[in-house]
Amino acid sequence: MRVGVLTGGGDCPGLNAVIRGIVRKGVQEYAYDFTGFRDGWRGALDGATVPLDIPAVRGILPRGGTILGSSRTNPFSEENGVGRLRDTLAEEEIDALIVIGGEDTLGVAGRLWEEHGIPCVGVPKTIDNDLSATDYTFGFDTAVGIATEAIDRLHTTAESHRRVLVVEVMGRHSGWIALHSGLAGGANVILVPERRFDIDEVCAWVTSRFKASYAPIVVVAEGAMPKGGRPVVKDKTLDSFGHIRLSGVGEWLAKEIERLTGHEARTTVLGHVQRGGTPSAFDRWLATRFGLHAIDAVRESDFGKMVALRATDIVRVPITEATAHIKTVDPALYEEVSVFFG
Amino acid sequence: MRVGVLTGGGDCPGLNAVIRGIVRKGVQEYAYDFTGFRDGWRGALDGATVPLDIPAVRGILPRGGTILGSSRTNPFSEENGVGRLRDTLAEEEIDALIVIGGEDTLGVAGRLWEEHGIPCVGVPKTIDNDLSATDYTFGFDTAVGIATEAIDRLHTTAESHRRVLVVEVMGRHSGWIALHSGLAGGANVILVPERRFDIDEVCAWVTSRFKASYAPIVVVAEGAMPKGGRPVVKDKTLDSFGHIRLSGVGEWLAKEIERLTGHEARTTVLGHVQRGGTPSAFDRWLATRFGLHAIDAVRESDFGKMVALRATDIVRVPITEATAHIKTVDPALYEEVSVFFG
Amino acid sequence: MRVGVLTGGGDCPGLNAVIRGIVRKGVQEYAYDFTGFRDGWRGALDGATVPLDIPAVRGILPRGGTILGSSRTNPFSEENGVGRLRDTLAEEEIDALIVIGGEDTLGVAGRLWEEHGIPCVGVPKTIDNDLSATDYTFGFDTAVGIATEAIDRLHTTAESHRRVLVVEVMGRHSGWIALHSGLAGGANVILVPERRFDIDEVCAWVTSRFKASYAPIVVVAEGAMPKGGRPVVKDKTLDSFGHIRLSGVGEWLAKEIERLTGHEARTTVLGHVQRGGTPSAFDRWLATRFGLHAIDAVRESDFGKMVALRATDIVRVPITEATAHIKTVDPALYEEVSVFFG
Amino acid sequence: MRVGVLTGGGDCPGLNAVIRGIVRKGVQEYAYDFTGFRDGWRGALDGATVPLDIPAVRGILPRGGTILGSSRTNPFSEENGVGRLRDTLAEEEIDALIVIGGEDTLGVAGRLWEEHGIPCVGVPKTIDNDLSATDYTFGFDTAVGIATEAIDRLHTTAESHRRVLVVEVMGRHSGWIALHSGLAGGANVILVPERRFDIDEVCAWVTSRFKASYAPIVVVAEGAMPKGGRPVVKDKTLDSFGHIRLSGVGEWLAKEIERLTGHEARTTVLGHVQRGGTPSAFDRWLATRFGLHAIDAVRESDFGKMVALRATDIVRVPITEATAHIKTVDPALYEEVSVFFG
Repeated sequence: MRVGVLTGGGDCPGLNAVIRGIVRKGVQEYAYDFTGFRDGWRGALDGATVPLDIPAVRGILPRGGTILGSSRTNPFSEENGVGRLRDTLAEEEIDALIVIGGEDTLGVAGRLWEEHGIPCVGVPKTIDNDLSATDYTFGFDTAVGIATEAIDRLHTTAESHRRVLVVEVMGRHSGWIALHSGLAGGANVILVPERRFDIDEVCAWVTSRFKASYAPIVVVAEGAMPKGGRPVVKDKTLDSFGHIRLSGVGEWLAKEIERLTGHEARTTVLGHVQRGGTPSAFDRWLATRFGLHAIDAVRESDFGKMVALRATDIVRVPITEATAHIKTVDPALYEEVSVFFG
Repeated sequence: MRVGVLTGGGDCPGLNAVIRGIVRKGVQEYAYDFTGFRDGWRGALDGATVPLDIPAVRGILPRGGTILGSSRTNPFSEENGVGRLRDTLAEEEIDALIVIGGEDTLGVAGRLWEEHGIPCVGVPKTIDNDLSATDYTFGFDTAVGIATEAIDRLHTTAESHRRVLVVEVMGRHSGWIALHSGLAGGANVILVPERRFDIDEVCAWVTSRFKASYAPIVVVAEGAMPKGGRPVVKDKTLDSFGHIRLSGVGEWLAKEIERLTGHEARTTVLGHVQRGGTPSAFDRWLATRFGLHAIDAVRESDFGKMVALRATDIVRVPITEATAHIKTVDPALYEEVSVFFG
Repeated sequence: MRVGVLTGGGDCPGLNAVIRGIVRKGVQEYAYDFTGFRDGWRGALDGATVPLDIPAVRGILPRGGTILGSSRTNPFSEENGVGRLRDTLAEEEIDALIVIGGEDTLGVAGRLWEEHGIPCVGVPKTIDNDLSATDYTFGFDTAVGIATEAIDRLHTTAESHRRVLVVEVMGRHSGWIALHSGLAGGANVILVPERRFDIDEVCAWVTSRFKASYAPIVVVAEGAMPKGGRPVVKDKTLDSFGHIRLSGVGEWLAKEIERLTGHEARTTVLGHVQRGGTPSAFDRWLATRFGLHAIDAVRESDFGKMVALRATDIVRVPITEATAHIKTVDPALYEEVSVFFG
Repeated sequence: MRVGVLTGGGDCPGLNAVIRGIVRKGVQEYAYDFTGFRDGWRGALDGATVPLDIPAVRGILPRGGTILGSSRTNPFSEENGVGRLRDTLAEEEIDALIVIGGEDTLGVAGRLWEEHGIPCVGVPKTIDNDLSATDYTFGFDTAVGIATEAIDRLHTTAESHRRVLVVEVMGRHSGWIALHSGLAGGANVILVPERRFDIDEVCAWVTSRFKASYAPIVVVAEGAMPKGGRPVVKDKTLDSFGHIRLSGVGEWLAKEIERLTGHEARTTVLGHVQRGGTPSAFDRWLATRFGLHAIDAVRESDFGKMVALRATDIVRVPITEATAHIKTVDPALYEEVSVFFG
């Protein structure tokens, strides 16, 4: 039995832990062989492979990124993509494929199994935590931890200078990172894409915070938008994953707050540091268990499925269901957190 | 409405976040007043109080420990304990009590409500994560994070000197910290109280690891015991919470491994650093939500209940059920993790 | 004897450690009284004070920012500034003033002593480490540590996606943070304000790095400029300290590198997180010793002087000399480090 | 030109940074070849080598430990040690040797050059910072940082439980780690090997701290000893470097403090975590520069010398002078710090 493994989409702390879990259990318990495909679907199309055995996965558990590389190549957008993929799998004598990736990458895996019978097992990956089939995705806890530490640091600057500090965190379509890091960091305002914000309400919170003689921190997801319009975006080009970049809301907010309240305001855009570096213990635990359960799914020929976390258990769900819609922040949860605003 | 709050048992990162959550929501949404009792049940017996209002909880979210102090005083072991407690509550005009603590502290709260009708709501606290009614307790993630970081550091020493490094972590009755930090830290052996270990098997794992030319890390919970006996304990005195101290297994292990394998071995006992300092973002999130939901339980006069985490929801369970038995490491989960041993 | 203390200019990890050192030694060993002035020279002009005794400095050692607040107010730019200052000092019965601040703040202290006989002792503060009279200033080590950790994290993203990552760090006039964090973080290019860079040489380093099959990290000080021009700046407004903001070089660089090499490039601007939060152990040591030596200077009526680090000793130098010119990166040191470029 | 490199003695964060600095500059600027000797002098005696070129040093900058391994083998204690060493150097065609190590390892290098004309250059390494020829050694800043972070964490436990917490840090012969981390961590008592302590004075400090209603932290170097005797040691065996282990003072202190003051006391022994893991930015900077200057010394045939830090410069000093006596804590500096005791 030979199993192919690939990682697609944006990098995420924990990818290497998944790969190590798959290979350690596959080799030691089931005597499987493995082939890594380089740079996601691109390697599976072009036959670009990486050797994947026990020595190859030694020491990678605490390392961020992915030893396999990643890309946003999509076989369904390529000339004869599925045919070329079949050729590679035949050439490499691959019996099953474990696909680690987000909505797009897993969507391909789901279709490959449903429409073409190519045996795939999925492992969900999104730093934004917005996949509906799983309680949490790995990488999210690390990102929240990095953002929280940054907010902790910014409090002292805000208070020493009595300034508003706006912190822009990741989250184009969902506000999970903003909500968790904002709560954990003691932010006074948290703005998420799920709910258009009212700039006057934001300014009222800012002002009331200063009256209590503390300086406010505003945490804003990069995809958050004001009511009745959208912020002037810094840069409207496509990013490497084909999405429109909506960054810029942080700087827009700081300028509006200054203009409307008269308080000095500054912006920090956390950016890529949120997704790099060593995974948190929580993410290493989750990612490793995802890897161990993914190889079990292969063992049981349970294809077209994705592993997922439900409470403290790892379960399997159909890939096609799992990627059907994104998991947005529940309004009731946002209300719960809003007691700390202002 | 005036609500009393106390924290009992060993300190735990997140206690202050709970207190802040209770007070912020109680004051802002329900216009409640609060009284803190100093040093757990001791303050509730002696009438030793701490002012608890919005200014008192400013800035405490990222701080470890508890601003209320803690102790292991138990009203049921004190001369006329319940009577004195009633007197304090009457004197302070307390309408309800929120009790944040572990098995012992919550057990008292459960009995006070069941047997004496004193209106209590519980918030579970154990760094060991061994309460059966909740998926996780706050403080656990922080402890696992600290232990994992220590294990990461010890790898380089083990490899530079080709030594066995034994890391003793907290866990007298359950191995959750050992299991999570051992997995996350890439340990080669993990020993837990739930399963007596075979020293020869441990030595076999150690030896096989050296053959693969790497130096092994052995993570052992302080309450782990060998088959057919128990380790020579360093210190058999009672600790401040009345439990027999079983520490010493780490040093015993290192000596036995040296004797039986001929490889040099060293021990690190992580000790109190695991329970101090700033809580992780995960623990701040969980502890804050516990606080918000505990004050809601008071609002709804839902006494005798404890807040608990189920997947991503906060629910309420009867305190007496929740403290009936401890949550030990599931053998199947231990098996799952054991693929990394040796 | 009553001593006034104030902190001026941008906040910097270690300010509170200085204040604590001054007060602890002043009260315990010399039985002095203290008055804190709020928000730098502004409080000294307006008579806005903060009580400053042993309880006020408890627990502030590990906290970033300054409990006294800060501002960029300059008495010499204010109507009858020196007169108002004298009035405040008389009113508060201040016998000496300890002034903690950067070039501007210390410059005022130097003139107050030299021209007006107001007894001042200085403590140098600049996160940029560009004061010539001292080997290091506190805050710098913390900033370098934060930037290095961010660079460590960005390596994994760069390599997983084969992208160029440009990291813009603080340093308008000097490249110390860029040089130290760039070296410590394993950057492949480091650009500093002291030396105009050649964009073609930068692109050659980037390209050669990709040939060795690794992804490059470019660390750039915010004040770095290309040869034959200056970068398109994002924002040319004055910042709160009256300097023109030159930020924007990071984004300019990423775009130029993409255009000239064809490799995808991204920018991270670290911003305010570099100057907030808990000081490193090194900075706590240095800042505390500065505080202890500053109060000794007061004790010895050695006014017009500033404390400074020389090797491992704290010495005193005339303030006016110390602030005469900034300490830029030595070309020989830059050459030494450049062995790691490309 | 072929240069041999070895690392001896206990591991220390920054060793890999030195090795990388040597190789990067040696290969790129001087076109030298390199041979690594495995496990210190042992590899140089037995001819056990490790390939050492640019790819071998990729990515090792942030990694603790040493890729070359280490040991306490001493050629002068081995049968025909110098002869065997000469044979290895001849066999491997080594023209010069760079020796990275502490007092013992460098002492060998000094004698090899002085007595046998074997061309050696030294790089000082001691986590204890007790080499007199250099202002700081790499690894020390990392150890102090780890100890300080642990002390920060222990404060919250001490205060929540009103306990004395005794923290035992490294330092058999010198108290540098205790002094720096104790000051940076806000300890209330710091005990060092250079000055026998009076247990009654320690208890007086502890008691006075409790009167101010805070819980004390006592930082003690492992080699500290009470007046009029020495502590009951836990373990009197030789450690792997042939020194008598004096650990145990921490536990002895906690018991004595409990007995004499009636306050509950606990001990944390930080142990090996202080010397493992990723080096701090300061240590990466220092270690890298040591490496760059060591290869320059080889280039200039300046043998029998050791690189050293003086203020911000790297200089060269004779190895034999440098290792003549250890640098102990200056009594005046200890007095300066003692203002914070009690």
